[in-house]
Amino acid sequence: MNTPAKRIAILTSGGDCAGLNAVIRAVVLRAETLNWEVIGIMDGTHGLLENPPHVMPLRMDNVDTVVMRQGGTILGTTNKGDPFAYPMPDGTLKDRSGEIIDAFKKLGCEALIGIGGDGSLAILSRLAKQGGFPLIGIPKTIDNDLGVTEMSVGFDTAVAVATEALDRLQPTAASHDRIMVLEVMGRDAGHIALTAGIAGGADVILIPEIPYSITNIAAHIKILRQRGRNFALVVVSEAVKTPDGDNVSQNFFGGQKRLGGIGHIIGAQIAEACQAETRVTVLGHVQRGGQPSAHDRLLASAFGVYAVNLIQKGQFDRMVAWHDRSVIDVSIADAIKHYQCVEKDGTLVKTARGLGICLGDETPLK
Amino acid sequence: MNTPAKRIAILTSGGDCAGLNAVIRAVVLRAETLNWEVIGIMDGTHGLLENPPHVMPLRMDNVDTVVMRQGGTILGTTNKGDPFAYPMPDGTLKDRSGEIIDAFKKLGCEALIGIGGDGSLAILSRLAKQGGFPLIGIPKTIDNDLGVTEMSVGFDTAVAVATEALDRLQPTAASHDRIMVLEVMGRDAGHIALTAGIAGGADVILIPEIPYSITNIAAHIKILRQRGRNFALVVVSEAVKTPDGDNVSQNFFGGQKRLGGIGHIIGAQIAEACQAETRVTVLGHVQRGGQPSAHDRLLASAFGVYAVNLIQKGQFDRMVAWHDRSVIDVSIADAIKHYQCVEKDGTLVKTARGLGICLGDETPLK
Amino acid sequence: MNTPAKRIAILTSGGDCAGLNAVIRAVVLRAETLNWEVIGIMDGTHGLLENPPHVMPLRMDNVDTVVMRQGGTILGTTNKGDPFAYPMPDGTLKDRSGEIIDAFKKLGCEALIGIGGDGSLAILSRLAKQGGFPLIGIPKTIDNDLGVTEMSVGFDTAVAVATEALDRLQPTAASHDRIMVLEVMGRDAGHIALTAGIAGGADVILIPEIPYSITNIAAHIKILRQRGRNFALVVVSEAVKTPDGDNVSQNFFGGQKRLGGIGHIIGAQIAEACQAETRVTVLGHVQRGGQPSAHDRLLASAFGVYAVNLIQKGQFDRMVAWHDRSVIDVSIADAIKHYQCVEKDGTLVKTARGLGICLGDETPLK
Amino acid sequence: MNTPAKRIAILTSGGDCAGLNAVIRAVVLRAETLNWEVIGIMDGTHGLLENPPHVMPLRMDNVDTVVMRQGGTILGTTNKGDPFAYPMPDGTLKDRSGEIIDAFKKLGCEALIGIGGDGSLAILSRLAKQGGFPLIGIPKTIDNDLGVTEMSVGFDTAVAVATEALDRLQPTAASHDRIMVLEVMGRDAGHIALTAGIAGGADVILIPEIPYSITNIAAHIKILRQRGRNFALVVVSEAVKTPDGDNVSQNFFGGQKRLGGIGHIIGAQIAEACQAETRVTVLGHVQRGGQPSAHDRLLASAFGVYAVNLIQKGQFDRMVAWHDRSVIDVSIADAIKHYQCVEKDGTLVKTARGLGICLGDETPLK
Repeated sequence: MNTPAKRIAILTSGGDCAGLNAVIRAVVLRAETLNWEVIGIMDGTHGLLENPPHVMPLRMDNVDTVVMRQGGTILGTTNKGDPFAYPMPDGTLKDRSGEIIDAFKKLGCEALIGIGGDGSLAILSRLAKQGGFPLIGIPKTIDNDLGVTEMSVGFDTAVAVATEALDRLQPTAASHDRIMVLEVMGRDAGHIALTAGIAGGADVILIPEIPYSITNIAAHIKILRQRGRNFALVVVSEAVKTPDGDNVSQNFFGGQKRLGGIGHIIGAQIAEACQAETRVTVLGHVQRGGQPSAHDRLLASAFGVYAVNLIQKGQFDRMVAWHDRSVIDVSIADAIKHYQCVEKDGTLVKTARGLGICLGDETPLK
Repeated sequence: MNTPAKRIAILTSGGDCAGLNAVIRAVVLRAETLNWEVIGIMDGTHGLLENPPHVMPLRMDNVDTVVMRQGGTILGTTNKGDPFAYPMPDGTLKDRSGEIIDAFKKLGCEALIGIGGDGSLAILSRLAKQGGFPLIGIPKTIDNDLGVTEMSVGFDTAVAVATEALDRLQPTAASHDRIMVLEVMGRDAGHIALTAGIAGGADVILIPEIPYSITNIAAHIKILRQRGRNFALVVVSEAVKTPDGDNVSQNFFGGQKRLGGIGHIIGAQIAEACQAETRVTVLGHVQRGGQPSAHDRLLASAFGVYAVNLIQKGQFDRMVAWHDRSVIDVSIADAIKHYQCVEKDGTLVKTARGLGICLGDETPLK
Repeated sequence: MNTPAKRIAILTSGGDCAGLNAVIRAVVLRAETLNWEVIGIMDGTHGLLENPPHVMPLRMDNVDTVVMRQGGTILGTTNKGDPFAYPMPDGTLKDRSGEIIDAFKKLGCEALIGIGGDGSLAILSRLAKQGGFPLIGIPKTIDNDLGVTEMSVGFDTAVAVATEALDRLQPTAASHDRIMVLEVMGRDAGHIALTAGIAGGADVILIPEIPYSITNIAAHIKILRQRGRNFALVVVSEAVKTPDGDNVSQNFFGGQKRLGGIGHIIGAQIAEACQAETRVTVLGHVQRGGQPSAHDRLLASAFGVYAVNLIQKGQFDRMVAWHDRSVIDVSIADAIKHYQCVEKDGTLVKTARGLGICLGDETPLK
Repeated sequence: MNTPAKRIAILTSGGDCAGLNAVIRAVVLRAETLNWEVIGIMDGTHGLLENPPHVMPLRMDNVDTVVMRQGGTILGTTNKGDPFAYPMPDGTLKDRSGEIIDAFKKLGCEALIGIGGDGSLAILSRLAKQGGFPLIGIPKTIDNDLGVTEMSVGFDTAVAVATEALDRLQPTAASHDRIMVLEVMGRDAGHIALTAGIAGGADVILIPEIPYSITNIAAHIKILRQRGRNFALVVVSEAVKTPDGDNVSQNFFGGQKRLGGIGHIIGAQIAEACQAETRVTVLGHVQRGGQPSAHDRLLASAFGVYAVNLIQKGQFDRMVAWHDRSVIDVSIADAIKHYQCVEKDGTLVKTARGLGICLGDETPLK
């Protein structure tokens, strides 16, 4: 291969998900057809804070068909440190954006492709503006809460894993007359819970967007029993809070403050309210790391190729997005603005209510 | 339950696919929340030609969570007989539309929900017009060739199965320095081949929309070898014809005229042109019958609920469609008109070319 | 079909698992080839305490190929009530064995096939002796703790599900430099944890048979880090107790006393000892209800056919078992006696130690 | 790490299968705990015919948890050339065993671990004897035709893939009243076809060990129809020959003489004999390359560790084997002698007949 015509950089930022490696591969393969070089920055922007910076040249060889099929990211990622308020060992926060920008500039790259969710893209966008370097964003989030793209990388796989868990819980629930509670991920938005719940035949789905009462849930389960159903499937988004505002993270995680554990609370409450046996599964990071679904790999591939094409055309500060069977691009600023949690009268909620699923705020069946 | 307020009918028509049962379930569950009755017509419109007609009442009991997870259709289906030119035992074709309409009217249903592809929906639409009964269409096709909906039921699962096959072929190809040919379904459109090929890391993808030459393919594989790759993955849509217009169906299927077999032709041609070991897998109906993916089940559920809602609102001759994270409805006539094969400059083709995949009409790598 | 030549009964008892329906199907299909009738008793022996008894005739139609592929048991099961000390609503325990035996005799069955683990088979055996009716046992347990059979129905699937979870946790662990803790099932024996841990590439596996110390685990993880590994996978059997004898069930399950939760304790302890980020997944009943693996379905089919053959030959009080690629039969009394937890110098433990996996009682790597 | 105490070599030989990488990993990990070095020989013994020899040092880094989960073999393999009668470019056969032995000796390894089926192990054993170097064999074959071990690496995964295909064919068969023919692998032995057929609910299973007649098959399908079944699943081992001794390989594979294609013959014959629609799936190498099942990975891990232990103890010319939940070792000579095709009165055949499955030589149902 000749001297590369251009050099670009890529990094993954924020929580990992399935499909990141497929994005990286697509960027590298597209770049190689143009005789460009790709530098991978390790551990989000953190790799640029190391001395020497943690970076790796990316070639077809190290992003081949095997890597594409794997969850996670070969570049590593992080969601711990905001470069503008970076947690230092002494407990203080420090603005390290200048260091990152300087290190990036020394790489000699003409543009940066950043793969991240709304938080990461906001930070990268601020860095790019301050540093004056061109940025292209690629949306990834298992939460699917970026509004301007129909799908973000990672969501389809997370939903598939959660749905599969429901498929496995249903027969054992029915065999033992039990109520199964499945706690799934979802930081602020209930898309995973609602989508997987509908696809997996849940009877009750609790999401952070809709307040629930145990009374409604118990009444719903009572009606199901009257209709002859001896079991129930309950999906709870980890971000759900009790009517009192509780979430059990503090008790569970050795003091680390995190989401999760609400499944156990709901399970105990239902057990009492329904005089039923309940069992709880907390899927956790199993939802992040799976082999990417075909759909996520397609999305990742299309996004990666399109992102390089934008650089080729000199169009920057754009985020690629999926719309109507196609990739389009939008301004990153617009993308971040359109945060999308579950719409209360949108298709997902209407579908759930239409199926007679209890969302916690009412008892849909009579 | 009280006397049903309304009675509607549902049937599945054309080739089966994953997700049909999830549509049926959604229709029944939504109808039950409205206190409506649902009649299932067996084997497409054929059930109405039997005496007595083959129909079954559908209730929550017989479309429960288990059925929803299964491929195929509990109603049976068919793609053999056009009611307007129905093949009779004596070999003649007969217009039996009148019989079907009469039988349907005797069921006392206020509307029919027909789940089918473009062919089936065209026939059902003609029947509905002639018979003067209200119709709602729900799009299903593994080929995803209906243009007005972003996705039809069954496509996502078919792609997932084909992609999984590529995931399994890759390591054995690499272990033995082989070229693997995977023949996938796709009657007229190459969406399955192209989508699964991209998602599964194919090196060559042949679709009916783009003519190929073995010369281009061999040149591409030669370049891959020069780059150090010791294997290749080739995806061929069953509808692909050789430059001479051949397709081997006649030889293969005991005289039955059908698509398929082209994988073996391509495999033999590549073996000769590249002096390589090739192996051929013909996935066949494995692509149709799988457990529906989470995405197909969501689509199916959303479509089913929305279809009943349309009947409730008295809106007919509409097909439900997926657009921008939502269900919408369009006129069936419009839907049928917008046949969508793979666009030569669309996102799928651009993504494939961008990744350096050979589509048979050129040698993308240098 | 003619008048049945014989009538037999079948029930499933104890915790459910994948493959029970495949056993039931095999029994029915084999019985049909002999023109025998099969009566399914619902909810373990509990169905016989109802008036009228909860039983269902089983025919090829209701145990067809679809049912065989499903987890759980269409007969229902239970692990709550010992017939000899049955918990009554008033809180007392009552010997109800006589009622069960009487009800069974009224069914007019020549023999009973009981599918269960060691506990269930012991109870069924006592009932059979007291009632003087012929019994055949079929071993099922996800724990694989019955010693005279190499494999019991349900184990292979449970291991597969737990292994798959590790496959999904590995890439996200590696992407974020995390230690992932997976709590798996296993009442008294660590077979699931050890087998899945080996198959899934775990670094630490804790089982109830081997006491652990956090010091050993932390030392092991330190060595892995020195070798360049940035993540670790830890598998914990739910039956593991802390050195202080703790298991967190009391706190977790709304007062219900059950196994489980130890994963969270271990996770918190490792987080502190290693100054690492840990994340915990509690797989729970997902391990029970999955679609049975091919191996479990083979085992189930071979067991079911063989069990009927034993009845045909008039050989009773036998349990079928898998040995050296074949089904054999042993006395139920012997089978129950040979309880098999993980052997400390058996193949599983030696394999784990050979791979350098930390079992909590030592630090295998230097 | 200090100077290695010992150096050993490993190679994979014959057709690849799932689990080979897990064996390699286990050998390397076990060797590392002993401070030994492992040399991987590429492409079976062929790597030793290259100048310089194709070998790679194997360390924990390059056989980590990711590789273990992949099908195929990172060492490459081959089943084309017998070193004692090696096909030369000029078409002659040449004894190249001396060259291989010399090259092996130059590696300075104290022993060779060879992973292969009966053919490969026979050749390796002859090489070891002639060259006077210690050999340990590890059995792998998707055919499971090595008699002294209950299971060989790769069989469980191949069966799982074939069973899954039947799971997917069943619903589409039932939806369209079709007979589905699935051609599976199996060179001389019918273990895959029989095991997957039983596990996957097949109605007809044809294996090379049992001659079939279409008359029997047609009679069987007729009885199924009389019982109300509208579909049938037929599994055919690729090694099955027609009563006339035909196998269609010649026609299919561009002149390359190979097994396979019999599925299409059987499909056409059944279509005619039963006046039914048939569809044929040829799974092909999809069965080889899949991600190894948990069971295959356990087997692989246990075998790999045990093989190194044998070398440590100075025990050679042994093959590891699985017996009664444990790894044992047997002499390679004995292992090769005990070829095991399907026993006509063994558990598999009895199970199939007991379920009423037609094996082609009789019509089991009345």
